[in-house]
Amino acid sequence: MPLSSKVSEARVVFTPSGKRGYFPIGTSVLQAAQNLGVDIDSVCGGRGICGRCQIVQAKGEFPKHRINSKAENISPLCETEKAYAERPKKTLAEGRRLSCATKILADCVIDVPPDSQVHQQIIRKDAEAFDIEIIPPVQLHYVEVWEPNMYDPSGDLRRLREALEREWQLKNLRFGPGMLLSLQRELREGNWKVTVAVDYLGQVIAVYPGFRESLCGLAVDVGSTTVAAHLCNLRTGEVLASAGVMNPQIRFGEDLMSRVSYVMMHPEGAAEMTASIRGALNDLFANVAKQVKGAVEDILEITLVANPIMHHLLLGIDPVELGGAPFALATDESVRVRARDLNLTLHTNTRCYVLPCIAGHVGADTAGMILSEAPYQREAITLLVDIGTNAEIVLGNNERLLAASSPTGPAFEGAQISCGQRAAPGAIERVRIDRETLEPHFQIIGCDLWSNETGFAKASKKIGVTGICGSGIIEVIAEMYLSGILSTDGVIHGYTAEKTPRVVADGRTFSYVLHKGDQEIHVTQNDVRAVQLAKAALYAGIRLLMEHLKVKIIDRIRLAGAFGSHIDVKYAMVLGLIPDCDLLQVSSAGNAAGTGARIALLNYESRKEIEEVVRKVEKVETAVESKFQEHFVNAMAFPHKTDSFPNLAKAVELPDEKNMQNQTDTENIRKKRRRRKN
Amino acid sequence: MPLSSKVSEARVVFTPSGKRGYFPIGTSVLQAAQNLGVDIDSVCGGRGICGRCQIVQAKGEFPKHRINSKAENISPLCETEKAYAERPKKTLAEGRRLSCATKILADCVIDVPPDSQVHQQIIRKDAEAFDIEIIPPVQLHYVEVWEPNMYDPSGDLRRLREALEREWQLKNLRFGPGMLLSLQRELREGNWKVTVAVDYLGQVIAVYPGFRESLCGLAVDVGSTTVAAHLCNLRTGEVLASAGVMNPQIRFGEDLMSRVSYVMMHPEGAAEMTASIRGALNDLFANVAKQVKGAVEDILEITLVANPIMHHLLLGIDPVELGGAPFALATDESVRVRARDLNLTLHTNTRCYVLPCIAGHVGADTAGMILSEAPYQREAITLLVDIGTNAEIVLGNNERLLAASSPTGPAFEGAQISCGQRAAPGAIERVRIDRETLEPHFQIIGCDLWSNETGFAKASKKIGVTGICGSGIIEVIAEMYLSGILSTDGVIHGYTAEKTPRVVADGRTFSYVLHKGDQEIHVTQNDVRAVQLAKAALYAGIRLLMEHLKVKIIDRIRLAGAFGSHIDVKYAMVLGLIPDCDLLQVSSAGNAAGTGARIALLNYESRKEIEEVVRKVEKVETAVESKFQEHFVNAMAFPHKTDSFPNLAKAVELPDEKNMQNQTDTENIRKKRRRRKN
Repeated sequence: MPLSSKVSEARVVFTPSGKRGYFPIGTSVLQAAQNLGVDIDSVCGGRGICGRCQIVQAKGEFPKHRINSKAENISPLCETEKAYAERPKKTLAEGRRLSCATKILADCVIDVPPDSQVHQQIIRKDAEAFDIEIIPPVQLHYVEVWEPNMYDPSGDLRRLREALEREWQLKNLRFGPGMLLSLQRELREGNWKVTVAVDYLGQVIAVYPGFRESLCGLAVDVGSTTVAAHLCNLRTGEVLASAGVMNPQIRFGEDLMSRVSYVMMHPEGAAEMTASIRGALNDLFANVAKQVKGAVEDILEITLVANPIMHHLLLGIDPVELGGAPFALATDESVRVRARDLNLTLHTNTRCYVLPCIAGHVGADTAGMILSEAPYQREAITLLVDIGTNAEIVLGNNERLLAASSPTGPAFEGAQISCGQRAAPGAIERVRIDRETLEPHFQIIGCDLWSNETGFAKASKKIGVTGICGSGIIEVIAEMYLSGILSTDGVIHGYTAEKTPRVVADGRTFSYVLHKGDQEIHVTQNDVRAVQLAKAALYAGIRLLMEHLKVKIIDRIRLAGAFGSHIDVKYAMVLGLIPDCDLLQVSSAGNAAGTGARIALLNYESRKEIEEVVRKVEKVETAVESKFQEHFVNAMAFPHKTDSFPNLAKAVELPDEKNMQNQTDTENIRKKRRRRKN
Repeated sequence: MPLSSKVSEARVVFTPSGKRGYFPIGTSVLQAAQNLGVDIDSVCGGRGICGRCQIVQAKGEFPKHRINSKAENISPLCETEKAYAERPKKTLAEGRRLSCATKILADCVIDVPPDSQVHQQIIRKDAEAFDIEIIPPVQLHYVEVWEPNMYDPSGDLRRLREALEREWQLKNLRFGPGMLLSLQRELREGNWKVTVAVDYLGQVIAVYPGFRESLCGLAVDVGSTTVAAHLCNLRTGEVLASAGVMNPQIRFGEDLMSRVSYVMMHPEGAAEMTASIRGALNDLFANVAKQVKGAVEDILEITLVANPIMHHLLLGIDPVELGGAPFALATDESVRVRARDLNLTLHTNTRCYVLPCIAGHVGADTAGMILSEAPYQREAITLLVDIGTNAEIVLGNNERLLAASSPTGPAFEGAQISCGQRAAPGAIERVRIDRETLEPHFQIIGCDLWSNETGFAKASKKIGVTGICGSGIIEVIAEMYLSGILSTDGVIHGYTAEKTPRVVADGRTFSYVLHKGDQEIHVTQNDVRAVQLAKAALYAGIRLLMEHLKVKIIDRIRLAGAFGSHIDVKYAMVLGLIPDCDLLQVSSAGNAAGTGARIALLNYESRKEIEEVVRKVEKVETAVESKFQEHFVNAMAFPHKTDSFPNLAKAVELPDEKNMQNQTDTENIRKKRRRRKN
């Protein structure tokens, strides 16, 4: 270190980054930080207005850096800081300083606390999930623009550009022609002081008169049944408000294929459905904005996930090609589009980012799930499953990733089940059957008591016991199987009718009566068959991917979506929805697609990441794989005591193969009876 | 040259480029040309469909290249070429070959005729103007896209991208989300063969099913009074159709400032005027398309020029800021915008390019004039003048370029003149006054005879003599001055009334009767004053620029616009509208602004050129230059016999300074009379 610099310069070390350098005495801490590329936020450009650039001076000896960081090594609290702290809603905690107003007087160590960093982390509650690093897609920049004068005639836009370059080193920003319509007013209203929102592609999204410091964005999960939106603070990642709404397209068909059929039958069908979903989104956005007493115009960025058909309808693309082979997507790229081009009434320049689709049956929602779960960052072979009318299946690790869609049908959603219903108050969601008496007890949504607990009748009276929802169906059938009512290949044993009045003849087959009351709730042989078909389709898809990936064992399983979040993974494994796996490694991923949308919203670099990952995902089309049918047939039966289910066998007492014999016996008995009758 | 290449390779020289290289025997001539970067057109990508890549083999000895180019050195006429020539509207002239179907068999010399080059030249009739090189902003690319299949699920867009890269090496093209709406249909309608229109920025503008070979664009000059459009073939530059329409905004105010006033007075005024001009443009476009039996959807690119106020109104920007100091433009950059964002009903992706404005009073029309005239490419000091309600003045050469706007008022357009009218049949446009008798004769628009020729009465009967248009006003006042009726400072000499009955007392001043008849047409003292004010404003602006540029002599003058095209430059100089200059170097530039729009349409590189030039233009604001007032006062008088007008003095007999004295005498006489009366 030359002597001269000792006199006029000081040494500054920033923590936690460890970045360090020499700066002339009197340099502001913010300037020094920016000069070194320290991650520190600022909206107002060092004017002491935004308070984003707060730092704390570390004090004491730092022998490693040869610094004795004393209080007097930085300038004392100044008027700017006092004025800042006195402003409404602003505080400057003890020890906190505005780095823009603090000057370096001698060697010092400066800590940038997490809330002053641009790239903050969101810690996810789910222990199995990675944290989210915030890299906002839109950032605010406050500037003071030179006023026009007659001696140097230049456009408002040019002077704004010059200010952005002068104060923020932002060059070659793109101003859409729409920006010009309001620019004059915004500049004059703000008395030539404006805050400019610039997105990660260098596109100017908004110009606000005066100083502005908060920005928000929306993560939207457009499902076939429900549409959910989360309003997030783009800086902190905080979820400010959430709302959901039924997808109004349900009136065109409950499942996706019937909606595609509607489009095929009605020339204006696609346009109708597009208008319908966009209308619902607008209502939803207004609802969300209202919750925070904000305006929809404050939402500058949206990310969307959707299955391929919803994706196409939302974008106004005819989905008919997705209704038949070869199921060609119009595009498998991500789409960035102005919200207003989708007739979404937000800020005039709000941009939407729609995650990429993967294949005709594997959509942007699956891309969202992959982004949220990031199996491509792990060595463990991970299985991701999102079960709906179609089950999306992703299998692999950081070396290879495969995806497929299996046509599970709507059984898991309670459709095609005689007493099935959506997950709503009154629906049975948990079931246990006594192995000896074969008597059931259950829980319904909206009541914490089990049906065999005292007070249940009273507590459930208002709600009623109205049906069985998806997780209830899984449990009742699994329990029926475990208690010997069901055979390994899914027949309700007729002979159990002799042991319990719960099993009753039902035409040529038998039913299990789960609940007697005003509304009798039973599980029919057809119900069991429907679940078997669904679970066999899912399992066959998983087997297919395991074969393609050449793995026999799956290290971890994550179940996504509403259904995946509610089922008891043990019962899912008992029925053979998912392959044998250490039960501790099977967990719910929550609404992973929606979380993916939120990650893409808060971290724009994740967009490139998922775009690249998705390109490398190997698509397996179950419909053209002859092996799929084979796996499907093999997967109809339920797991029984063999070497194939070591983990499951540890958790439950699986029926043995004899169970199968019993069933065949029952069938034989029945056949004999029939013959006699004839 | 190694021996091996002699055996398997041949030498090819292309003319006129002179590019040359060695190619394997059997290479197609097109491939060789493209490999060397020879400027040769192709839409179909070498499939023998478009016929754009025609070449001619040069035959005989080329000692310089050591080539003896014999007919047999290229493959003979093949089936592809015969099939091409047999198609309707297609011909293959004697000696012409399709380079894509012609193979190189031995050393040869190949000529690429001008019509096979992408960069063609348009020779302009105006000897003073540079030719236009065509570098189309949009080009067509025919591709065959792979069909989707279930084993390799990928989106239509991706497969189209792959085809464009495979066949045309086009990468990273931008497909707006709007493209996705019709892509599926276009690909399937064309049986996976489509023609893709790509603009110079890599933006895909249109996808046409099947093969398509022609493209057109529009150059539009949005004037305050009239709007004109030229439909051009984007490849050849040919003007396919033209049309004009009155600017419907006239109902909001005849001149621009009254339209701005309307906006100030009416909250919806700007929106009304924007809708009005856009509506007129849509009508105009439909008209132009109809002329060629085409559809407006075939127009993929538009360029527009306009003065600043029309520019703002067209783009939907409030023009009020342009109505008062400091006359700040919303933007002085060029604007590229989708036609549909301006509510222009063309192809859904048609792009508009609006040339940059220069300053609050110097618009994109002036930028168009500068581009058309290219004074920045000449050493000669050039003065460009476009006279309207404001006169736009550009002065300079390849070193410096200055621009200003002078408030000439509407006198030159026939307004503020007692018998003034627009240039229309019946308007006097040419005037001569006998130096001895002071009798006039004139020509009217719509009749070739002079008023003193036999047959004039009969010929003009139907049309009538209805008023004086701009060029007529210039001529009559100049002739009045040259024949001694007017004094050097613009007073109608009372004593001339004694010499001719044409000069009559008119209140306290005198008038000159130009035409007696049903409708008497005269020139009043006020008319002379109005013209003096207008010409003094123009001249003062020019003087100001000459001072700024520090030049005393102007090498050449180009008069643009309707008025500039019709006036006799000699008379313009007699009145002192323009400074003294060699009359041979003063000429009309026609509708230079419109030509600029056409150049920007046909040669996209010219856009960058004018954008750069415009940035360097030094803006002089007449309103803040104190010298302007001084020049203005000095410019009120007409040129007389001095050393200041050497060129003009050669062309006409200018009155001498005595003329001035006479006038003073006349005024004195009149004053005396008045005093006596009182």
